[in-house]
Amino acid sequence: MDASLLAALRERQPLIHCISNIVTANDCANLLLAVGASPMMAQAPEEMEEISAAASAVVLNTGTPSEEKFAACLRAGRTACRAGIPVVLDPVGVGASRWRLGHVQALLKEVHPAILRVNYGEAAALLRGGQAERGVDSLPPLERNAAAAATALARVLSTVVLLSGTEDVVTDGETVVTVSGGSGYMRSVTGAGCMLSVLCGGFSAVAATPLEGAVCAARFWKQAAALAEQDAAGRGMGSFRVALFDAASRLSLEKE
Amino acid sequence: MDASLLAALRERQPLIHCISNIVTANDCANLLLAVGASPMMAQAPEEMEEISAAASAVVLNTGTPSEEKFAACLRAGRTACRAGIPVVLDPVGVGASRWRLGHVQALLKEVHPAILRVNYGEAAALLRGGQAERGVDSLPPLERNAAAAATALARVLSTVVLLSGTEDVVTDGETVVTVSGGSGYMRSVTGAGCMLSVLCGGFSAVAATPLEGAVCAARFWKQAAALAEQDAAGRGMGSFRVALFDAASRLSLEKE
Amino acid sequence: MDASLLAALRERQPLIHCISNIVTANDCANLLLAVGASPMMAQAPEEMEEISAAASAVVLNTGTPSEEKFAACLRAGRTACRAGIPVVLDPVGVGASRWRLGHVQALLKEVHPAILRVNYGEAAALLRGGQAERGVDSLPPLERNAAAAATALARVLSTVVLLSGTEDVVTDGETVVTVSGGSGYMRSVTGAGCMLSVLCGGFSAVAATPLEGAVCAARFWKQAAALAEQDAAGRGMGSFRVALFDAASRLSLEKE
Repeated sequence: MDASLLAALRERQPLIHCISNIVTANDCANLLLAVGASPMMAQAPEEMEEISAAASAVVLNTGTPSEEKFAACLRAGRTACRAGIPVVLDPVGVGASRWRLGHVQALLKEVHPAILRVNYGEAAALLRGGQAERGVDSLPPLERNAAAAATALARVLSTVVLLSGTEDVVTDGETVVTVSGGSGYMRSVTGAGCMLSVLCGGFSAVAATPLEGAVCAARFWKQAAALAEQDAAGRGMGSFRVALFDAASRLSLEKE
Repeated sequence: MDASLLAALRERQPLIHCISNIVTANDCANLLLAVGASPMMAQAPEEMEEISAAASAVVLNTGTPSEEKFAACLRAGRTACRAGIPVVLDPVGVGASRWRLGHVQALLKEVHPAILRVNYGEAAALLRGGQAERGVDSLPPLERNAAAAATALARVLSTVVLLSGTEDVVTDGETVVTVSGGSGYMRSVTGAGCMLSVLCGGFSAVAATPLEGAVCAARFWKQAAALAEQDAAGRGMGSFRVALFDAASRLSLEKE
Repeated sequence: MDASLLAALRERQPLIHCISNIVTANDCANLLLAVGASPMMAQAPEEMEEISAAASAVVLNTGTPSEEKFAACLRAGRTACRAGIPVVLDPVGVGASRWRLGHVQALLKEVHPAILRVNYGEAAALLRGGQAERGVDSLPPLERNAAAAATALARVLSTVVLLSGTEDVVTDGETVVTVSGGSGYMRSVTGAGCMLSVLCGGFSAVAATPLEGAVCAARFWKQAAALAEQDAAGRGMGSFRVALFDAASRLSLEKE
């Protein structure tokens, strides 16, 4: 992890506008505060332009979606793109329904994310959905190959993809960075991915490029998870989650 | 608690589709993960059929309700019933308003829950509401008698009722199982009932009958609460809640 | 802090109706339970009259707002005002957009809060917004002076203002009470203000006057934060949050 980016985050305290979901909004806000950023959680379509325009990064999380929330994502995303503010898109469970996939595809036609944060299933759904729709043959077969899926998606969408898993893959379609470490317990933390996405927002607000921001976020989160596993030492998932926030705030302070 | 059901839960990792609420969605998702299930938190009416059809159990929690959420419950519940997927209904605070009671009654006309998870007040509201509406004299007087209320409700609705309290009562209208133990601190944990309902979802996905699933969920939750009280040892409600999730995940692992 | 008010809260367990937000609803409910009150989290416009009428205090938190939520606030607030039930208003981030400011101003025309809980930025937005609209010259210049801003706002709205910060200011426009202490870590807890607002609801349900209720809430929260900082002893923000709920529940029990 780049300690100077973390120091910059704590110093500048950038405003990160997050469209969130009812499951992880609290965790996402607390994590941003723990690393020194200023979260603004808001999702009324009526106020998206004003709020996004004032932010240093915008994170669109489409978990527990609704028609209204997709409308808000569209307005927030458009505003940010026009103003050159980095957008992070987290298309939570995009393959869960045709309605969800259709809305995310429509969003991607209007909003160009600086970073797309997905897991393998979401990457596959986006590639498959696009393939079905556009009849493209050039996409890789959807074997369980995270690097291939991330690279394909990064090229199709001309964006940086952070595909998280046991090993994270970050790529702009050319350069591929893998980030390992972390903790197996993270699979049992709801919103581990949502939280990584808001970290992408935080770091992309201070990084030179989206790739740098995404790599830094992935490294930070893997490091926090590894520390939390040491701290919680088998006490259970409640203690692990507490230790995760402890680690995130301590990592930040140690780098000052 | 039936250790083999817990082992089955961890092995099969069934997808549990939860319509949740803004107060306890995070806790419910984390608890399902702690016991080895795969939560899917989604409540857009537009996608209920697809998501419920893919689940091994569907949990309808009507806390912090809205017209849209009741519509989602109806669509999710109908889909599950048609497909033979067990539905758990948690009619949070059903007696709080006529609007809420009316919607839950309408839901019960279209959706047959495998398990109804209520507290005494909710059971009484449903019995009283039904009584008022249908002029039935055969219902028991609503004295503070949990077993009588649970049995009456189970018979009226032809479902398994889990009426939780200091002592839980589980009944299909004939067999009555009581589950004691637990911790008095549980009364100060918001969503203790919501969490028990998602456990009913998890266990009913692997149990032979809804009665077995509900009894197993109640026993598991009482045991986790008792362990948490030992662990937290009077430190306070913050520590008790952490210990509750620790206990839930440890209980699961110990039974493997 | 007035120990007799805390004892009264634990004894009477007043029902506090909270319109909350997706970020802090869980924390607010758990905090009310920790101090002995009975939270009712509900925000469907259709049921506001019935639920508010049954409450001992109503807390309107306009965070993560929507048109529907503002409609609910209006109905809940009107009902409470007519019935003489104290209303606490927390206009979260009111300056974030014109839409949000407009809705809060409209709410203030119809609903008279017993207590307005704000931070400095929210107080400034309300004063500035009112000033712009009404062309009043008599408002103080918006220098960074919490006491002046709180007093001005209390006079304009004829309400008790609790302006929270490093030092809290509570005033009815005449008497000014400052409350210091607490912990610097509170700035990194999302919803620290939302939680103070529900405490205002809890204490105003048992206090003789809104001023007394607000002062007690502020003192309680500062004391809990100071205790939490001792308890968590630099372990990090996860542990600090746990310790905060521990302190809130222990403070309550110790005063019995």
